[in-house]
Amino acid sequence: MHFLTVDDLTPTELDSVLTSARDLKGDYAGTPLADRSLAMLFEKASTRTRVSFEVGMTKLGGHAVFLGKEDIQLGRGEPVKDTARALACYADAVMARVDDHETLETLAAYSSIPVVNGLSDEAHPVQTLADLLTVEEVVGDDASVAWVGDGNNVAASFTVGAAMRGHDVTVATPAEYALDDGVFDRASDYPGTVTATTDPEEAVAGADVVYTDVWVSMGDEDEREQRLDALQPYQVNEELLAGTDAKVMHCLPAHRGEEITEDVLEGERSLVWRQAENRMHGQNGLLVQLV
Amino acid sequence: MHFLTVDDLTPTELDSVLTSARDLKGDYAGTPLADRSLAMLFEKASTRTRVSFEVGMTKLGGHAVFLGKEDIQLGRGEPVKDTARALACYADAVMARVDDHETLETLAAYSSIPVVNGLSDEAHPVQTLADLLTVEEVVGDDASVAWVGDGNNVAASFTVGAAMRGHDVTVATPAEYALDDGVFDRASDYPGTVTATTDPEEAVAGADVVYTDVWVSMGDEDEREQRLDALQPYQVNEELLAGTDAKVMHCLPAHRGEEITEDVLEGERSLVWRQAENRMHGQNGLLVQLV
Amino acid sequence: MHFLTVDDLTPTELDSVLTSARDLKGDYAGTPLADRSLAMLFEKASTRTRVSFEVGMTKLGGHAVFLGKEDIQLGRGEPVKDTARALACYADAVMARVDDHETLETLAAYSSIPVVNGLSDEAHPVQTLADLLTVEEVVGDDASVAWVGDGNNVAASFTVGAAMRGHDVTVATPAEYALDDGVFDRASDYPGTVTATTDPEEAVAGADVVYTDVWVSMGDEDEREQRLDALQPYQVNEELLAGTDAKVMHCLPAHRGEEITEDVLEGERSLVWRQAENRMHGQNGLLVQLV
Repeated sequence: MHFLTVDDLTPTELDSVLTSARDLKGDYAGTPLADRSLAMLFEKASTRTRVSFEVGMTKLGGHAVFLGKEDIQLGRGEPVKDTARALACYADAVMARVDDHETLETLAAYSSIPVVNGLSDEAHPVQTLADLLTVEEVVGDDASVAWVGDGNNVAASFTVGAAMRGHDVTVATPAEYALDDGVFDRASDYPGTVTATTDPEEAVAGADVVYTDVWVSMGDEDEREQRLDALQPYQVNEELLAGTDAKVMHCLPAHRGEEITEDVLEGERSLVWRQAENRMHGQNGLLVQLV
Repeated sequence: MHFLTVDDLTPTELDSVLTSARDLKGDYAGTPLADRSLAMLFEKASTRTRVSFEVGMTKLGGHAVFLGKEDIQLGRGEPVKDTARALACYADAVMARVDDHETLETLAAYSSIPVVNGLSDEAHPVQTLADLLTVEEVVGDDASVAWVGDGNNVAASFTVGAAMRGHDVTVATPAEYALDDGVFDRASDYPGTVTATTDPEEAVAGADVVYTDVWVSMGDEDEREQRLDALQPYQVNEELLAGTDAKVMHCLPAHRGEEITEDVLEGERSLVWRQAENRMHGQNGLLVQLV
Repeated sequence: MHFLTVDDLTPTELDSVLTSARDLKGDYAGTPLADRSLAMLFEKASTRTRVSFEVGMTKLGGHAVFLGKEDIQLGRGEPVKDTARALACYADAVMARVDDHETLETLAAYSSIPVVNGLSDEAHPVQTLADLLTVEEVVGDDASVAWVGDGNNVAASFTVGAAMRGHDVTVATPAEYALDDGVFDRASDYPGTVTATTDPEEAVAGADVVYTDVWVSMGDEDEREQRLDALQPYQVNEELLAGTDAKVMHCLPAHRGEEITEDVLEGERSLVWRQAENRMHGQNGLLVQLV
């Protein structure tokens, strides 16, 4: 079984993963993955993903093998299907951060061991595990959440995952940077209500948690100026949040002064370090279920 | 004791290593190398060698330290003899993948801990351990084997190793890419009969296993076109194998359409994934004997 | 508690660290840091620092996560204060080798886990732990030591650390490459007597151990020729050491023919490999006290 998108799990499986994550966060006694190895493939460097998985495997009694872009070039030298089968000769699971989601699909098609999406251009489902843990720890099972900003891969996974958990979600983006219709279709299968809008104030009103992310993701650098202009009204700042008790999430790294202000990021509303810590616990909950 | 070439072991020691490897493959219970560290030096990246040693050390209860070409430049900054002695201050064994076999000899001359050849321009003895495990698992102790293609480092180590184990070996290469006479001399000390030919059909006839490898190895890139022309008749394809039950080995990565065809590599004859998995078990058998 | 300079410890704490180091060197039984992780940040590659920390953590039952300059760019992409807090979400301690000591100070200011200086432009306190272990093993608590050569970061930490332990230290450097006055001020708080001179023969006379290091450190490359000229009289060679029984230390890598001669480095006086091995034990003594 693979985890390329959040809805590769059923709602029941997702609940099991989050329950495991909470149990592990409470107590890492035992070594459920003793002698097990996770191969980590990175087409692009990422401190948080790297360290959370590597320390996470250590806490579970296992080991993570780091393969950076200098160590392995997916699709260069040998086809991805051969890399998939070679890794399955040794490791017990594979985590890959890839530029193109199709690379993950090829890995998964040829891999006899679980493949975990560590971030692709389409989805970031391990981040969603951390986000759901955070929302439910701080607010509870009936939290209402708002995504404000770019309708990117993090937004897509979060929207589907929150709907799976029964949270009401409002997604506020400019029309030209909206989530794909396919994401709303997927979310509509689940109990949470998902609403799309172009009005950030509408999204924030009544939200327990407001979530944003960088405006210029990998692959978007060419349209940087255009994006900053269009997204400016979606900045998460005290003016937007005025009159609400909303908490704020961000998957980091943050660009202060763009999608979020320094005072919000560093202030009382911010859940970002709790959310960062929950990356590890969410991933570990997943790994003990998959491996 | 070091392992730079396969005949650094006596036939009795080689038998012990292969027996350990088979035992471990059956059951990795226990942590024979608990708290032990293997330093891995790579002058050139290699996914298979990297992951098989690093996961292998984890299975044995120990740890492998990866030092890539960005992390350590052998002979730059400090002499190789100093690096050898520094590593011996901390690690319990060294594995090195080097461009020049002499670098291994210098490491070994100054190292108080075992040095293992992870691949050099002259030899690939850890691959030979995997190859012998595979041949003997699938065919048995009396297997006849054929090498078909370039007389490279993999061929050299395999020919000597197979002769040490009493296998009959036929080596078919173009005259200009034949194995060095020194390899045949070394092999002649052992019970297996080694025959050289330039005729691939002669080699394949009667062989239980046919083994090939890429035609353009590291350092050979300048003569790429010339090699492809000379080696074309040695391609391992169904036409060459017609009328035989021969299995096929390849140490990977493979260049489909050059030394081997897609249908052979992916077909019933192929032992390549078993062989890849045996890399780890063969190396682990070696490590528990050496360390 | 952090360890950015040797005098971040009190003399009593330093004694505890060295005692732990000696105990561990005698017997690594037990796994005091089981399941603990050390994040290692390297702005510049270093084989010795890398391998000694990574093998050291393995011996203590824990794990070290290696983050090279390709994996993490401190201050690029996100502010150092965010990296500090992200690492503290996962790891149990941070070791950083940085170009600019201020980066360490920022890491420490924002880190809820211990930060260890693995080498900065100002200080090399983990080297000092190894140096003190070596001096006291070979000579004893009343050793007199001489630094001869460039008044660099290694000299600064060693001078303060030796004074803290009650050793008498003579520092012989050219006037233009002398230690900062601040270093002598810090050392003057402690029982050891520290003497500055420009005369290498004066320093060596009566010294039990003579310590030198490379003349051109990181950041000094532009003034290479000027440094070689000024420092030539400070070369540690048999002529300088004639008539003494002094042992010789060097933190490696060495530039033979510059600050030290081949015959001294490889001769009976040399303590360099013992000192290299003590890097690991000194750091491990520190880690079990800090974590």
